[in-house]
Amino acid sequence: MGGYSTNLAQKAPPTRMSEPALSFIANTTPEAQRALKALRRQYGHVPPAEADMLVVLGGDGLMLQALHRSLKRRTPIYGMNLGTVGFLMNQYRPNGLLARLKRARRIGLAPLRMIVRTTRGQTREAIAINEVSLFRSSRQTARIAISVDRRERLPELYCDGVMVATPAGSTAYNLSAHGPIIPLGTGLLALTPISAFRPRRWRGALLPREARVEFTVLDPRKRPVSAAGDSVEIPNVARVTVTEASDIELTLLFDPEHDLEERILKEQFQP
Amino acid sequence: MGGYSTNLAQKAPPTRMSEPALSFIANTTPEAQRALKALRRQYGHVPPAEADMLVVLGGDGLMLQALHRSLKRRTPIYGMNLGTVGFLMNQYRPNGLLARLKRARRIGLAPLRMIVRTTRGQTREAIAINEVSLFRSSRQTARIAISVDRRERLPELYCDGVMVATPAGSTAYNLSAHGPIIPLGTGLLALTPISAFRPRRWRGALLPREARVEFTVLDPRKRPVSAAGDSVEIPNVARVTVTEASDIELTLLFDPEHDLEERILKEQFQP
Amino acid sequence: MGGYSTNLAQKAPPTRMSEPALSFIANTTPEAQRALKALRRQYGHVPPAEADMLVVLGGDGLMLQALHRSLKRRTPIYGMNLGTVGFLMNQYRPNGLLARLKRARRIGLAPLRMIVRTTRGQTREAIAINEVSLFRSSRQTARIAISVDRRERLPELYCDGVMVATPAGSTAYNLSAHGPIIPLGTGLLALTPISAFRPRRWRGALLPREARVEFTVLDPRKRPVSAAGDSVEIPNVARVTVTEASDIELTLLFDPEHDLEERILKEQFQP
Amino acid sequence: MGGYSTNLAQKAPPTRMSEPALSFIANTTPEAQRALKALRRQYGHVPPAEADMLVVLGGDGLMLQALHRSLKRRTPIYGMNLGTVGFLMNQYRPNGLLARLKRARRIGLAPLRMIVRTTRGQTREAIAINEVSLFRSSRQTARIAISVDRRERLPELYCDGVMVATPAGSTAYNLSAHGPIIPLGTGLLALTPISAFRPRRWRGALLPREARVEFTVLDPRKRPVSAAGDSVEIPNVARVTVTEASDIELTLLFDPEHDLEERILKEQFQP
Repeated sequence: MGGYSTNLAQKAPPTRMSEPALSFIANTTPEAQRALKALRRQYGHVPPAEADMLVVLGGDGLMLQALHRSLKRRTPIYGMNLGTVGFLMNQYRPNGLLARLKRARRIGLAPLRMIVRTTRGQTREAIAINEVSLFRSSRQTARIAISVDRRERLPELYCDGVMVATPAGSTAYNLSAHGPIIPLGTGLLALTPISAFRPRRWRGALLPREARVEFTVLDPRKRPVSAAGDSVEIPNVARVTVTEASDIELTLLFDPEHDLEERILKEQFQP
Repeated sequence: MGGYSTNLAQKAPPTRMSEPALSFIANTTPEAQRALKALRRQYGHVPPAEADMLVVLGGDGLMLQALHRSLKRRTPIYGMNLGTVGFLMNQYRPNGLLARLKRARRIGLAPLRMIVRTTRGQTREAIAINEVSLFRSSRQTARIAISVDRRERLPELYCDGVMVATPAGSTAYNLSAHGPIIPLGTGLLALTPISAFRPRRWRGALLPREARVEFTVLDPRKRPVSAAGDSVEIPNVARVTVTEASDIELTLLFDPEHDLEERILKEQFQP
Repeated sequence: MGGYSTNLAQKAPPTRMSEPALSFIANTTPEAQRALKALRRQYGHVPPAEADMLVVLGGDGLMLQALHRSLKRRTPIYGMNLGTVGFLMNQYRPNGLLARLKRARRIGLAPLRMIVRTTRGQTREAIAINEVSLFRSSRQTARIAISVDRRERLPELYCDGVMVATPAGSTAYNLSAHGPIIPLGTGLLALTPISAFRPRRWRGALLPREARVEFTVLDPRKRPVSAAGDSVEIPNVARVTVTEASDIELTLLFDPEHDLEERILKEQFQP
Repeated sequence: MGGYSTNLAQKAPPTRMSEPALSFIANTTPEAQRALKALRRQYGHVPPAEADMLVVLGGDGLMLQALHRSLKRRTPIYGMNLGTVGFLMNQYRPNGLLARLKRARRIGLAPLRMIVRTTRGQTREAIAINEVSLFRSSRQTARIAISVDRRERLPELYCDGVMVATPAGSTAYNLSAHGPIIPLGTGLLALTPISAFRPRRWRGALLPREARVEFTVLDPRKRPVSAAGDSVEIPNVARVTVTEASDIELTLLFDPEHDLEERILKEQFQP
């Protein structure tokens, strides 16, 4: 059903919640590796494919990787912060994990699907949880046309790049590029230019989640551009289409007192 | 309930649509007055209270007045631009009006309700279609605390003022104050500071339409503040509460080729 | 010769520096009044007209007042912060004042001169240390034409207002209105719009200090505007001309370790 | 010395101005090549090393190349626009060239010198007319420390990149990255972040032209960064120092009615 929902917890009572089978993954840092060993000993450990829940020990980078790897199984994921940026993570505490998992609030995220046509005529597809971005891959400024729902809205944007960000991704790269923070559950996507040269003060747009955004790379030989779904990059793109992947719903688990909705709201009031 | 809907046309087949009773109002400019006379002669004219539809000849200012005056009756309003700013208006053409009204797309707008407590302890209420704004009424910078859903989010904002804008109002004062344009139908409100002095780079927030925003004026004697619902001003306010007036739905009529949804989307792609 | 200079100290050896005659002024707060009494007892006190140096106990507001009152005498002023905003002030410490005054770095500030023509045809003049600002004095958006050096640069700016700020004032109201911070000594003025409605993304301009900026209020009856030099306001203005008052140089005294130049530089690196 | 001057024309009367030896260079486009042939036939042509003036037929890109190639000889350059972006160019007209060169206003530009230390310990130097920029060269956000005049001002900036721009370059990449336009002759440099992630709302700083800016790349292995002087790129940098090259002065020639100073001023009033 796509998008975002918080009432899943009520609707779908988790089976075996009293003793869920857990799978742990961790960063390579010594601290995360120590935590991994201790937690596996304390709570047991199954391979990801057999797990009821995944527990990620690290930062947002590792969480994004885990989400990408679980696109098919869609196992709910609970993160504990042992990394640099921990926006998608809960606080790290070794004890009381089962109780925390039981009370956790489920936040459903709808990722983006990007379909790329390369300059050589190949088609590639990827899923992005934070953002789909295009970026110049040489010193030449990119020149990109933008259509929304098959209607051309910007015939040429000269820029370093441009992105479509989800609400969950709106506090990440989108924010650096001066895009707006979007609350979860509002059904919006942020279309945000990266260092727009012309039209020079264009600030981007907020689009309904149903929007189909198409980027056409102009002069792709003189001005080569690559596209990325989160951190996976595809070079030499000619056309990139972005839609919400409403057939996929990923579930993140949060301690109710600091859930993602609250975090994104709070982030907007940061001085 | 409330808010924004575009499928009203299907749901509620207008009665007597073939020959609706029309009421016309116009700006005081000679051009608008001439148009008024001609149109009344051509299409007939009834008092507003008996009209099936209101036709407004002027700019957005007059349209806002007409909307305010029809808060109780909620007669659908069709505007034709004979003013300075015509964002809420259709193109002016004297002929073919009945056909245009027949094909017009109905856009439902949910206004804001502001409840004001003055420094003298009085309570006043007003409705705003574009925005509720607070503004310093002396040379002293205003000092305002902001709560969302009864939770304090900003303990003190030093500023010229602050506003809550609807999607329809997001292209008006909100845009001047560097707030984001919000597409219709997304269920969002923009909370936007006006010349924030401290926290000095605070850019405001996007809030869910169900949010209840409360502004508390600090030092109201040293730093007097007035509040305004659109252009109606209330001096010396101590506290202002803003919610969506989900019990009121106003209906604007637009030629389908240039409806308000399209305009707001387009506005975001203005260079 | 106006503007800004830091080598005055070398050029103009202060007379009687060993025992300068001091005049103290203070805020009305109990704390500032207590400090005033103690300092007058400790260091003696002469009337402002006889003082070699003025010592101001309060915040930037009082300092601006003191600077305005000493426009003719131009007595050097040393501020100690006992107020809310202390950008122009040194740290408050009751002891060692004479030694601090001796080592103080002299910063010369060139104020602005505004010449106002009112809608009634009167001419008024005022001096501003931070900024000259124009602001709508009704709910009607102001409409203002801007010329630089007698050449029209913006035929109509729809806005809440507009200002010209000095480097010293660039961290004050100018910053709230999204204007740039200007280092001292660079010979620039900031022309900054306040909530520009049209052209809607106009961010203002940096102008050479020799620039003569002229604002013409359009529709002054329908859209009344007032002008202010710092906090002194003149209502119903028709035209306002702003130039650097290069015939006036005000001298502020700063402890060398935290002088104004360093503060403005530092302010730019505030996160 | 150095920087910017407009009174050169008075001070240094050009020799043989009545019949200067001209050298022409042109873009590879058919249009520019046709113009090249015609102009060489009409006005004669000498090799660049023997020319009194260089005439460039193309856009800003070719002009920057020509300026870089003439760093040693510093022959004055006159550009005529036959390219895409022509900010540094005069209007193209084949006739009357000698008269235009005679009346041309000379604008002196001081470039930047960057000294780069690579991660392998090599030292490289380059000159930049528009800007020195650092940019991440992988998907990893760059992490950079910034010092001004050997004093650390920002211990860590997480970003796509950061640049120092000259006034002439302030309307180019700097503007895209939301930096301010700086008038010529004001002795300022713009330090501007590119998609700053943390501190997330840092807007950069205006620095005196004498400033020595030093960037230190943190985690250069995990987060590789390249540096560029205009379009010449140096990969894997560890440290980059930027100063004004006050020993070099490049001279551009402009028709007096559209000189560079006027253009930069005008650019600030673009809606």
